[in-house]
Amino acid sequence: MVESNGAHVNGASHPASKPAAEEPERKKRCLWFEEELEEDLRWVFGVSKILHTGVSEFQDIELVESGPFGKVLILDGKLQSAEADEFVYHESIVHPALLYHSNPKNVFIMGGGEGSTAREALRHRSVEKVVMCDIDEEVVNFCRKHLTVNAEAFRSSRLDLVINCARAELEKRTEQFDIIIGDLADPVAGGPCYQLYTKSFYECILKPRLKEGGILVTQGGPAGILTHTEVYSSIYNTLRQTFKYVVPYAAHVPSYADTWGWIMASDQPIPTMSVDETDSRIKQRIDGELKFFDGQTLSATMALNKHVRKSLAAERHVYTEETARFIHGHGTALKM
Amino acid sequence: MVESNGAHVNGASHPASKPAAEEPERKKRCLWFEEELEEDLRWVFGVSKILHTGVSEFQDIELVESGPFGKVLILDGKLQSAEADEFVYHESIVHPALLYHSNPKNVFIMGGGEGSTAREALRHRSVEKVVMCDIDEEVVNFCRKHLTVNAEAFRSSRLDLVINCARAELEKRTEQFDIIIGDLADPVAGGPCYQLYTKSFYECILKPRLKEGGILVTQGGPAGILTHTEVYSSIYNTLRQTFKYVVPYAAHVPSYADTWGWIMASDQPIPTMSVDETDSRIKQRIDGELKFFDGQTLSATMALNKHVRKSLAAERHVYTEETARFIHGHGTALKM
Amino acid sequence: MVESNGAHVNGASHPASKPAAEEPERKKRCLWFEEELEEDLRWVFGVSKILHTGVSEFQDIELVESGPFGKVLILDGKLQSAEADEFVYHESIVHPALLYHSNPKNVFIMGGGEGSTAREALRHRSVEKVVMCDIDEEVVNFCRKHLTVNAEAFRSSRLDLVINCARAELEKRTEQFDIIIGDLADPVAGGPCYQLYTKSFYECILKPRLKEGGILVTQGGPAGILTHTEVYSSIYNTLRQTFKYVVPYAAHVPSYADTWGWIMASDQPIPTMSVDETDSRIKQRIDGELKFFDGQTLSATMALNKHVRKSLAAERHVYTEETARFIHGHGTALKM
Amino acid sequence: MVESNGAHVNGASHPASKPAAEEPERKKRCLWFEEELEEDLRWVFGVSKILHTGVSEFQDIELVESGPFGKVLILDGKLQSAEADEFVYHESIVHPALLYHSNPKNVFIMGGGEGSTAREALRHRSVEKVVMCDIDEEVVNFCRKHLTVNAEAFRSSRLDLVINCARAELEKRTEQFDIIIGDLADPVAGGPCYQLYTKSFYECILKPRLKEGGILVTQGGPAGILTHTEVYSSIYNTLRQTFKYVVPYAAHVPSYADTWGWIMASDQPIPTMSVDETDSRIKQRIDGELKFFDGQTLSATMALNKHVRKSLAAERHVYTEETARFIHGHGTALKM
Repeated sequence: MVESNGAHVNGASHPASKPAAEEPERKKRCLWFEEELEEDLRWVFGVSKILHTGVSEFQDIELVESGPFGKVLILDGKLQSAEADEFVYHESIVHPALLYHSNPKNVFIMGGGEGSTAREALRHRSVEKVVMCDIDEEVVNFCRKHLTVNAEAFRSSRLDLVINCARAELEKRTEQFDIIIGDLADPVAGGPCYQLYTKSFYECILKPRLKEGGILVTQGGPAGILTHTEVYSSIYNTLRQTFKYVVPYAAHVPSYADTWGWIMASDQPIPTMSVDETDSRIKQRIDGELKFFDGQTLSATMALNKHVRKSLAAERHVYTEETARFIHGHGTALKM
Repeated sequence: MVESNGAHVNGASHPASKPAAEEPERKKRCLWFEEELEEDLRWVFGVSKILHTGVSEFQDIELVESGPFGKVLILDGKLQSAEADEFVYHESIVHPALLYHSNPKNVFIMGGGEGSTAREALRHRSVEKVVMCDIDEEVVNFCRKHLTVNAEAFRSSRLDLVINCARAELEKRTEQFDIIIGDLADPVAGGPCYQLYTKSFYECILKPRLKEGGILVTQGGPAGILTHTEVYSSIYNTLRQTFKYVVPYAAHVPSYADTWGWIMASDQPIPTMSVDETDSRIKQRIDGELKFFDGQTLSATMALNKHVRKSLAAERHVYTEETARFIHGHGTALKM
Repeated sequence: MVESNGAHVNGASHPASKPAAEEPERKKRCLWFEEELEEDLRWVFGVSKILHTGVSEFQDIELVESGPFGKVLILDGKLQSAEADEFVYHESIVHPALLYHSNPKNVFIMGGGEGSTAREALRHRSVEKVVMCDIDEEVVNFCRKHLTVNAEAFRSSRLDLVINCARAELEKRTEQFDIIIGDLADPVAGGPCYQLYTKSFYECILKPRLKEGGILVTQGGPAGILTHTEVYSSIYNTLRQTFKYVVPYAAHVPSYADTWGWIMASDQPIPTMSVDETDSRIKQRIDGELKFFDGQTLSATMALNKHVRKSLAAERHVYTEETARFIHGHGTALKM
Repeated sequence: MVESNGAHVNGASHPASKPAAEEPERKKRCLWFEEELEEDLRWVFGVSKILHTGVSEFQDIELVESGPFGKVLILDGKLQSAEADEFVYHESIVHPALLYHSNPKNVFIMGGGEGSTAREALRHRSVEKVVMCDIDEEVVNFCRKHLTVNAEAFRSSRLDLVINCARAELEKRTEQFDIIIGDLADPVAGGPCYQLYTKSFYECILKPRLKEGGILVTQGGPAGILTHTEVYSSIYNTLRQTFKYVVPYAAHVPSYADTWGWIMASDQPIPTMSVDETDSRIKQRIDGELKFFDGQTLSATMALNKHVRKSLAAERHVYTEETARFIHGHGTALKM
């Protein structure tokens, strides 16, 4: 078709090549990433470059350069992680549980193939081993190769990288862990991770792998005013049926367009830590500076608002093999 | 063009009118509201109905039925308020200041023509008068007519509704107020509300209108990890130059696709209230049940995360007549 | 939430209320109509107002003011007709058949509840009666009320408006027509109009209602380079099995984002008319000025391009009760 | 963040891993190309892959895999050419002029760096030389490398590829051509190609380069019912002031979401060719099979509809150094 052909040169007999009163051309963004958060709600941002792509047995993998969020990791069209604010998610999923534990030596991460969760865990000086168990080898390789911020973690001698279904891996191991982190996709019926959120999974497969004083922390899906009953309250209630002490906490992650939730669970008490105690432990235990977490942040994330607290308290749904909840865009609901 | 014409009737010689193997037709959403939050970031939700429209001297006004957020008030194409979560914003902008104050009798609201801020203020039993001063008579009339949730507030004998520029109104009054609430558009150079965020405005016009022990609380714009330096940190720092005690707090408002910020300021101390003290005051002072706010929520909103706290502490920008900051979609920046 | 509050007034001690170097605010379009033409193809235009809405037993009805196309009629989220270019569609569906006919006295319109097809037919002086038979009374009423361009047609004494399924109406009538116009939704399995495109419908119900020399003309769906095999070629081939003479023709309708097709069919020859002969007949027979159609336009629309002609010639699919084709967004295909 | 972790394995004690009543997950398109055709009109299609990117001194270059149109070449965010239908554009811009000419031996292409125009020209057996003159070396290299459909043309010994401003190239050459093809961006004030559409350019620079009997054919921008007065009618009228015989013609190009226009111009008559004569010449002169063009197609494209014909006849605007028209998205208008 047509190509641009600049013609700024004029012979002497011609006036200035540019007529007066022109506006500079504005380069419009033409490539957009769109995620359907809800049936009628779209999160749309401009993409300037597709940096790398891959495909695994399970999903499509893309690393794109976005306008607002820097480099963004997308799996099967769903935003997983954004350079600009992934520290919020990863500091949140890792540090509270490790700080609450008296002396965490070994950590088992279910999922987390991106490497960022392991990166945060490895900052704890007491940690001797981090097992990162993800089912998707391509995602792991992709992230190891392209997410430079996790390069050091991937190379760490303390990292034990396993490619396997986390459930199967926990079943086959005999060792026990101080901390188990669930960094998996949300539980939806028919979805790949549903089986790692059921009561029986927690009871029969996970708990046996926790040492005395061990803590489970799991990502809990969206925890915003309008979305916390999609899966968060159910995960919370399921854990509440399984563990003696359950502590929900949440923070706003801009690139997720929502507040996100996590939940700690243990059969030993998880007593409130003062702001000073938290700051002190952070100083003692963690290499480098945290960007999001300190004592005050911890107290903020752990003080849920009234509306969400009421829902959590009232939730009766439990994930079992027979029941499920629906989260938009992932499989179907089997209503109770 | 073509109209649908159902043909479900068949003569006896014809088989079933519907051929086999058909899927039900899915009604697709066709009308979308789109707000450009940043240059490369769009917040897009489905609209099922435009309920009411109006136009004022200043802006276009629409109340639409949205998919995710219920009824949504839109001014000049920017989402102002959504039925599903406006309680987060309005409880947040009103109750902390009124709860901190020992005995708030009169309240002056700059802006707030929607009526929701007044609604929350009027729930305080000690409050004898709420002056709601908005410049846009059409918006006020529109909301009074169509936002049924505020009907009672609009009718209240304790409400003193004034149509005027708030700055001019404060200048002309001599009475003083226990609480002044700034519920205005964000400050941008050339924007309609810039003059209500400057140091000189606070010093010379607003403070004289505050009683002894009086508290100013203002909305502060987006306060998320990625956006809090657009205007929030500047408003905070400007207030810090003007008042002895300044308390920032924030909460995630889903329909704004961001964490939103507010700031209390006073020349009298705003001491921390314990969770129990807060709950107690709420019980004593406020009619009806709050959905978002209680003692724990207050502590959550007031504990900002480390990242934002650092920015606020480091902010040097002050709003004066000569300087400004830029917030996307509103006028231009005059850089310092 | 916040309301705008202009603060343009300054006391004498304050400098100009507007800081320097500001850009005017640009009012962005915020409401968009989106139609999914194909799975990966969207036609999106700005909507400034929703003028009127209605709902019938069959579909949602909206008349909106659009940016590019003027007033637009939308049924169930699909653009039906746009003020700016509906004359292309309606002149095209009506005038060729009526001009080819030696002396059209009565016309039966299947569908066309919008009124525009009847409007064009009534411009022919020879026409004594136009039966407009649409199943959707609300659409008819809505358009009669709101589409002022068709007001005269709706009031015409020559118009016989019937609310019924066209198939049932033709079955029950005994009179015959010079022209039958199919102005219905595209044929898709399970869709409301499929039964009015089948071979048996044409053979057994429609043809008996055509007088000697009578002509059927039907809209044929998208007829563009990339889309003409969705339904157009099948309608063409089905008619080819049923009538002796079949003449396809097409024109680009901007608001449909595609070339649209129609097909004339008759058991009497439809001989080529010269440009002059066409212009002459238009002058003699039609009231007022046509905007799109004259002799040259007719020859243009009837000369299909090579690519489409080849497809039409090769098409073997026939619409019967058992088979169907798929058009995006409407029901499912039952493949042959 | 979270990674998918399949858990399809169950120990013997667990029931089927998939709860009942699940729907298969639908992979949603997440990357979209959006072009703003008009201020309120967007053409949006899904992109599955970015195949290649480049950047030149003048523009960004992308070749993407799209859903509806196959591979699509995008320059500075504007769709230039789509695999699925570029044959419509390129057969249209080349073959009429070459078929009308009695014996075209040499052809000069202004622009056309994509190679497709040259490809079509080289199919004419009489053609001994095609000069392709584009200013953008990167675009030429990019297309030579990645548009395999043009590989043969790029390698042709009859192709003389020149990197230069076409205007400067024509000025410096002394040889004359049978055919000059303008395959450039639309003329807009301040745009790169404006100077190649002015009366003085045609008079003083181009015409001297046409042999006796030579024909100029230029692309003319959008020629649809609603858009043909943006630039098409002005180009037409400008040519009408400069050449004795001017023949406009147009065809719908789906990926452009509009009818596109071209114009032939010559000082020798361009008499109507019959359908048979056209088909005969195509057979004699052109290698291989044309997909879009034959005699009937030619007559279709050359018979413009009444609405457009009237505009063209009435157009008074002429492109000179002082005047311009505005086409959306390119620079500003300098109104007459």
